[in-house]
Amino acid sequence: MELKFLQKLAMPAQTKIAMIIMDGLGGLPLEPGGKTELETAHTPNLDALAARSALGLTIPVGPGITAGSGPGHLSIFGYDPIEYEIGRGALEALGVDFELSPDDLAARGNFCTLDANGLLTDRRAGRIPNELGRELAELLRTIKIDGVEFFIEPVKEHRFAFVMRAPALGEKLSDTDPLKIGVTPLPIYAGGPESEKAAEFANRFIRQAGSLLVDKQPANMIMLRGFAKFPKIPSYQEIFGLHSAAIAVNGMYRGVAKLVGMTVLPLEGTTIADEFSAMEKNWNEFDFFYLHIKQTDTCGENGDFEGKVGVIEQVDALIPRLIALQPEVIIVSGDHSSPAVLKAHSWHPVPTLLYSKDVRPDGISEFGERACLRGSLGVLPAKNIMPIALANAGRVAKYGA
Amino acid sequence: MELKFLQKLAMPAQTKIAMIIMDGLGGLPLEPGGKTELETAHTPNLDALAARSALGLTIPVGPGITAGSGPGHLSIFGYDPIEYEIGRGALEALGVDFELSPDDLAARGNFCTLDANGLLTDRRAGRIPNELGRELAELLRTIKIDGVEFFIEPVKEHRFAFVMRAPALGEKLSDTDPLKIGVTPLPIYAGGPESEKAAEFANRFIRQAGSLLVDKQPANMIMLRGFAKFPKIPSYQEIFGLHSAAIAVNGMYRGVAKLVGMTVLPLEGTTIADEFSAMEKNWNEFDFFYLHIKQTDTCGENGDFEGKVGVIEQVDALIPRLIALQPEVIIVSGDHSSPAVLKAHSWHPVPTLLYSKDVRPDGISEFGERACLRGSLGVLPAKNIMPIALANAGRVAKYGA
Repeated sequence: MELKFLQKLAMPAQTKIAMIIMDGLGGLPLEPGGKTELETAHTPNLDALAARSALGLTIPVGPGITAGSGPGHLSIFGYDPIEYEIGRGALEALGVDFELSPDDLAARGNFCTLDANGLLTDRRAGRIPNELGRELAELLRTIKIDGVEFFIEPVKEHRFAFVMRAPALGEKLSDTDPLKIGVTPLPIYAGGPESEKAAEFANRFIRQAGSLLVDKQPANMIMLRGFAKFPKIPSYQEIFGLHSAAIAVNGMYRGVAKLVGMTVLPLEGTTIADEFSAMEKNWNEFDFFYLHIKQTDTCGENGDFEGKVGVIEQVDALIPRLIALQPEVIIVSGDHSSPAVLKAHSWHPVPTLLYSKDVRPDGISEFGERACLRGSLGVLPAKNIMPIALANAGRVAKYGA
Repeated sequence: MELKFLQKLAMPAQTKIAMIIMDGLGGLPLEPGGKTELETAHTPNLDALAARSALGLTIPVGPGITAGSGPGHLSIFGYDPIEYEIGRGALEALGVDFELSPDDLAARGNFCTLDANGLLTDRRAGRIPNELGRELAELLRTIKIDGVEFFIEPVKEHRFAFVMRAPALGEKLSDTDPLKIGVTPLPIYAGGPESEKAAEFANRFIRQAGSLLVDKQPANMIMLRGFAKFPKIPSYQEIFGLHSAAIAVNGMYRGVAKLVGMTVLPLEGTTIADEFSAMEKNWNEFDFFYLHIKQTDTCGENGDFEGKVGVIEQVDALIPRLIALQPEVIIVSGDHSSPAVLKAHSWHPVPTLLYSKDVRPDGISEFGERACLRGSLGVLPAKNIMPIALANAGRVAKYGA
C-alpha cells in the first residue's frame, strides 16, 4: 500500500498514539529449544498489555534482510525503507542537530592515529575525550577551500559530523577508512562523473586536515565515510496528520525522527525513566510519541543475554506510567532483532504488540517471539504497523462508499 | 523486494545450502479431517529436522494460482515467476541439453496417430519406443524451409523438442494439440503480427511432416505446443554469488536449473538414492545444491495417495545422509502441491522447512501441512525463501547503518 493512498484517507482525531521501540528487541535462545531474551524477561506489565492487544512479528526491510537502525526505524515509522534510503552521513549530521539543506553532502568523520610512516595504528585515535574532540573540530573549521563551505560538528569522543555545502555535489563517494590498521587511509574515489567535484573537495580537505593535525597525536589525522545527502521524506504531519514527538538519547535516533518531521523533546537525564518523564511532561502537546530505548541493542551487540533481559525488565517496570497516560494506541516493538547469541543485528522478525480498545484481542497473555507468532497481526512488513495504529486511533477514513 | 536489491547485499561466505524439492509435495486428506500425504508419511528424520527449523507454507505464484513446474521452480529458486516466464517449449529444449540462442523459438513436439479421415485417434502415438522416436526425428530433420533452420531433438517415446531458428520470430503461437481425440489437430495461429512469420514456418513444417510420416502409423503425424523463447534470467552466480549444482533425473528440472546457471551433475542411476550419492560425491565443489525428486508429483497426478506417502518415506530415510554433510542451511519444500485426491497440480501452499543453527526454532516436531501453518515463516511467497536461506548462510550484508 502506497503512502499516498493512506495520506488521502488520513483524518484528524483527538487521539494519541505511543510507540515504544526497544532497539534490537528480537532475539534468539541461548540453546536450541530455549527461551529468547524477551521470553526470558519477567514482564508482568507487558504480558498484561499483550492480553488486551494484537500481537505479531514485523519484518523491517524484507525477508532475510538484516536492517540497520535507519531503515529499521523508517519501516516501523511507516515508510518503505528501500524507497527511502538514508545514508549514514546524513543520519550522523541529523543526530547532532545540524540542519541539512538540499545542497549539503554529509559524512561521518573521525579522528585517527597514524604512525611516522603514515600507517594507521588506531582507527579511533584512542577515543579522545569529548573536550579534545571539540577543540580539534574548531581547528578543522579553519580550513577554507574556494567553491565549497565546510561544517564540522563534534559528535562525541573521536567522532564528528562532516558536511560540505556547494551546488550539485554528487554523493557517490567512497570511504577513506580501510577498516584495518597497518595500512594508510584510502583516498576518496568518485563513483561517477557527477561526484568528481565532491571527491576533489573532500580529498583536499583531508590533506589540509593532515597538515593541521600533524602534531596532535593521537588525533593526527581524520577519516570520512558514509557520504550521503538528505533524502526527501514526506513528514508525519503531511502524511498522517500527526503532530509528533521523539524521545531518544542517542543522536542517530533523534536524527531519523527529525527526518520524518518529529519534534525531538529535551531530556533531563539519560535513563529510560527520564525518557518516560519527558513523555509525561509533554503529553498534552503532541498526538504521537516515539520513545526509543537503546540499551537492548547495545546488550545484544555485546552478546550480553542477561543484560538485554534486564533492560527489557526495566522497560516493563515503566509501562504502568505509559498506561496511566491513557493513549488510545500503544505500539511496543523494535527496529530490528539483535540476538545476543549473534552479537549483531539480524534478519529475524521482531515481536510487536499493538494495543487499543478496538483491537481484536488474540487472547495471548505473553509478549515474546513465539507468543507473537500466534498473534493476529501475523508476520507482516513493519511498515504496515502505522496504518493499523492510525486506524485504531480513529484516524483513517473509510475507503469507498 | 527486488532481486537487484538483494544482489547489492549478497556477500561471499564459506557456507553451503542444500535445497531438497519433492515435486508436488503439498497434499490434501483423502477424507475431511483426515491427514495429507505428508502428514500420513512416517518421517522421523524430517520431523527431527523440523524441530530445529523454521516452518511455513510457500505460495509459488500467487493466491489461488496453480503453478506448473517451471514457475514453481523459479519461485522456490528466488525469482518472481510472473516476471520471468518460461514457456514449456523452452524448458523442453533445455531439458535435452539443446543450447537455445536468442533467435530460437522452441516448442514441445510429439508424434500422434490420425485415422484415414485425419482425425486424432491417439494423442501420444501409442507411446512409441524411444528408438523409433529417434528414427522419426531423423526423418523430420530432412525438412528444409527457406529463411529458417529447424532442430529436432528426441526426448523420449513419442516426445521431441522442436526449435526454429530465424531472426525476429515472435513467440505468440497457439498449440496444435486439441487435447481430445476424434477431431483434427489444430493449425497454428499467430497471436499478433510479430508472430505471423513464425506461425507460417511452423504450419509449413507440420504439413511437410504429415507427408513424410504418412505411412509411419501409429506415428503418422506431429503436434506442437508450448511455443516459447528463452527468457533472460540473471544467474545464481550473478545474483546470489552462489556456485550452484542441480541434481535431477528429468529433463525439465535439469532445464530450469540450467536456466538459472546451475551446473547439472551427472547421475550414476535414476533412483533417489543415486541423487543423494551425486550430492555427496560433488559436495566440496559447490555452495548450493538443488536436489529434485519427481515421484511425489507423479504419484499425486496419478491419484496414488499411498504411493506418494511411500516416496516421501523414501526421501525421509535418506535425510540422514544429507545431515551428515553438515550444510549450514537445509530447505525441504516442493515446487507446488499435487494432492492425490485431485490427481493434478493445485494452488495449495506448499509445506516448507528451513533449517540452520541460527533459525528461531518454532518448537514444532513435525513436518506437515498443519504443522507448517504454525511455523514462524508464516504463509509466504516461495520466492522469499532464498533470501532467508542466504541470510542464515551468512551471505547477506546489513542494509543501512
